[in-house]
Amino acid sequence: MAAVRTENGRVVAVVGATGAVGTVLLEVLAKRGFPVGELRPLASERSVGQRVQFGGRSWDVELATPEAFDDVDFVFFAATGALSKQLAPEAARRGAVVIDKSSTWRMDPSVPLVVPEVNADALEKNGGIIACPNCTTIPLVMVLEALRREAGLRSAVVTTLQAVSGAGQPGIDELDAQLAATAGGAPAGAPKVFPMAIAHNVLPLCETFRDDGYSTEEMKLLDETRKILDMPELAISMTCVRVPVRVGHSASVLVETERPLSAEAARAALARFPGIEVRDDPARNLFPTALDAAGSDDVLVGRVRRDLGSDRIWLWEVSDNLRKGAATNAVQIAERLL
Amino acid sequence: MAAVRTENGRVVAVVGATGAVGTVLLEVLAKRGFPVGELRPLASERSVGQRVQFGGRSWDVELATPEAFDDVDFVFFAATGALSKQLAPEAARRGAVVIDKSSTWRMDPSVPLVVPEVNADALEKNGGIIACPNCTTIPLVMVLEALRREAGLRSAVVTTLQAVSGAGQPGIDELDAQLAATAGGAPAGAPKVFPMAIAHNVLPLCETFRDDGYSTEEMKLLDETRKILDMPELAISMTCVRVPVRVGHSASVLVETERPLSAEAARAALARFPGIEVRDDPARNLFPTALDAAGSDDVLVGRVRRDLGSDRIWLWEVSDNLRKGAATNAVQIAERLL
Repeated sequence: MAAVRTENGRVVAVVGATGAVGTVLLEVLAKRGFPVGELRPLASERSVGQRVQFGGRSWDVELATPEAFDDVDFVFFAATGALSKQLAPEAARRGAVVIDKSSTWRMDPSVPLVVPEVNADALEKNGGIIACPNCTTIPLVMVLEALRREAGLRSAVVTTLQAVSGAGQPGIDELDAQLAATAGGAPAGAPKVFPMAIAHNVLPLCETFRDDGYSTEEMKLLDETRKILDMPELAISMTCVRVPVRVGHSASVLVETERPLSAEAARAALARFPGIEVRDDPARNLFPTALDAAGSDDVLVGRVRRDLGSDRIWLWEVSDNLRKGAATNAVQIAERLL
Repeated sequence: MAAVRTENGRVVAVVGATGAVGTVLLEVLAKRGFPVGELRPLASERSVGQRVQFGGRSWDVELATPEAFDDVDFVFFAATGALSKQLAPEAARRGAVVIDKSSTWRMDPSVPLVVPEVNADALEKNGGIIACPNCTTIPLVMVLEALRREAGLRSAVVTTLQAVSGAGQPGIDELDAQLAATAGGAPAGAPKVFPMAIAHNVLPLCETFRDDGYSTEEMKLLDETRKILDMPELAISMTCVRVPVRVGHSASVLVETERPLSAEAARAALARFPGIEVRDDPARNLFPTALDAAGSDDVLVGRVRRDLGSDRIWLWEVSDNLRKGAATNAVQIAERLL
């Protein structure tokens, strides 16, 4: 296990500090009081020269090079997979603990893939790089683990409804531009980030298609869930959908447990689980939505009910894809390592 | 069976002619060349005095009273359930064929509930009132029937993503008003049609909750599908979700057939089925979206693929909730009766 070298005031590098996740990461580090002694905001050439605000002062964004990781304690990679592939081993070799938000290292058997509430023990065997799961995987494994601890776990059917910020700031900008154009009656314009117009539309594709007709996003949900839960044969059936929402991923989830579970018992198990907040009272029209999740570090769960034709449990989960789905989970990993 | 009394140039009444579905109904009657000799646009007192355009002329909207149905051949009810409950029997008693879009008569055992491509034979035993299914039921039973004819049918898991026009013109107006307010940075304002803000949000509730935590919309999907397919025990597991889309209901559907089916065979069975158009080529990023369905009379289907952990088939279906989900299906019923 890579050592954390100073007792207080860690040297923290953030690669991709000016992007959608990087910006939130700085907010989360500040809000949670992470002991940052020195901040090194790093980026590719395009963003060098910008400045970011943190801890009451302004920091220059510098070029992400191997030497930039000298004497660094923690590195958060919130950038492209290419940058992570090239530089994460360089940072680890210099003694830093790398927490990577890209998909580059997630399925590497030697790299722990961690949601602290679920499998913090996997952190013990790290070689300097720790992977943070995809934004849809994190809330899913939390609800599945909560139910598994109560009644075992057999399978799940999942349909996700994912915010445009899953594609970063360009995704938000594209939705906003299309909404502005169509509000005035103009056409949405040629899409760049998404394959078709996302304003007033839903797209049954996140990321790109593989040859077998599944999207790379869907396969992440399957592969990462199996790795984190250490259930290599777990049956996850999934469709991932993009919706015209700025922030907040939602999912409808149908869970088959090993032992039948009442809705009340499922709700209680979810409410007990750290990092999950249950908001579920149909009589008062209470259920969580993407807007409720935006800005929250928790996974919000509602609509917990028994399936009408089987012993399965339906639920609805929402989370902030930039926070618990990304930045918050990464910072929580670093907190565990302190 | 109620007789259709004239050979050509039918007298056609439309109750709710100025609403979202009523407006589209007039368009569909015209586009499909339905033989309308005389149009009687009817409405509750609130809309009396308005005029609608049809067949190159303007028609006065008159009050929907029992006497307004004298000498009428076909009545389309595209209004509230209360109006339908009160007036549909009056119209039928006067010899008109009533095609009702409300939920009032759908589960009445003496009333056929019809999607012409699926169960047109149910029209033979009508007592003057024929019910048109809910907008989410129609596309679902079409894809299920297409697969049933090929390989039998066991169960389905469905998550719908429904447009705001499912709540009529007020639903569209509320989304547009919230988008306009939030684009300028203002709050969305207090919602009236939906329980929470729908702009930049998704709500896991369509219509209202029952005591058991299921929504009335979800129960319609179950009950109506069972009736139309004449499978009273069919297992349908469902979550119905509202999305910030003006027109076009989408659904992700996982279907268990009696005999295993390859994706190719499922795709071919769907493509053969009348009223279904398959748009499915991941290699070319081809899949149908809500915007594609808007204005179409067909159910569009894509993302047909085998589940990775079972013999089930995943698919994605979209349809125009005001057309095939409402007006088109109603007009198709009338065409069958001609």
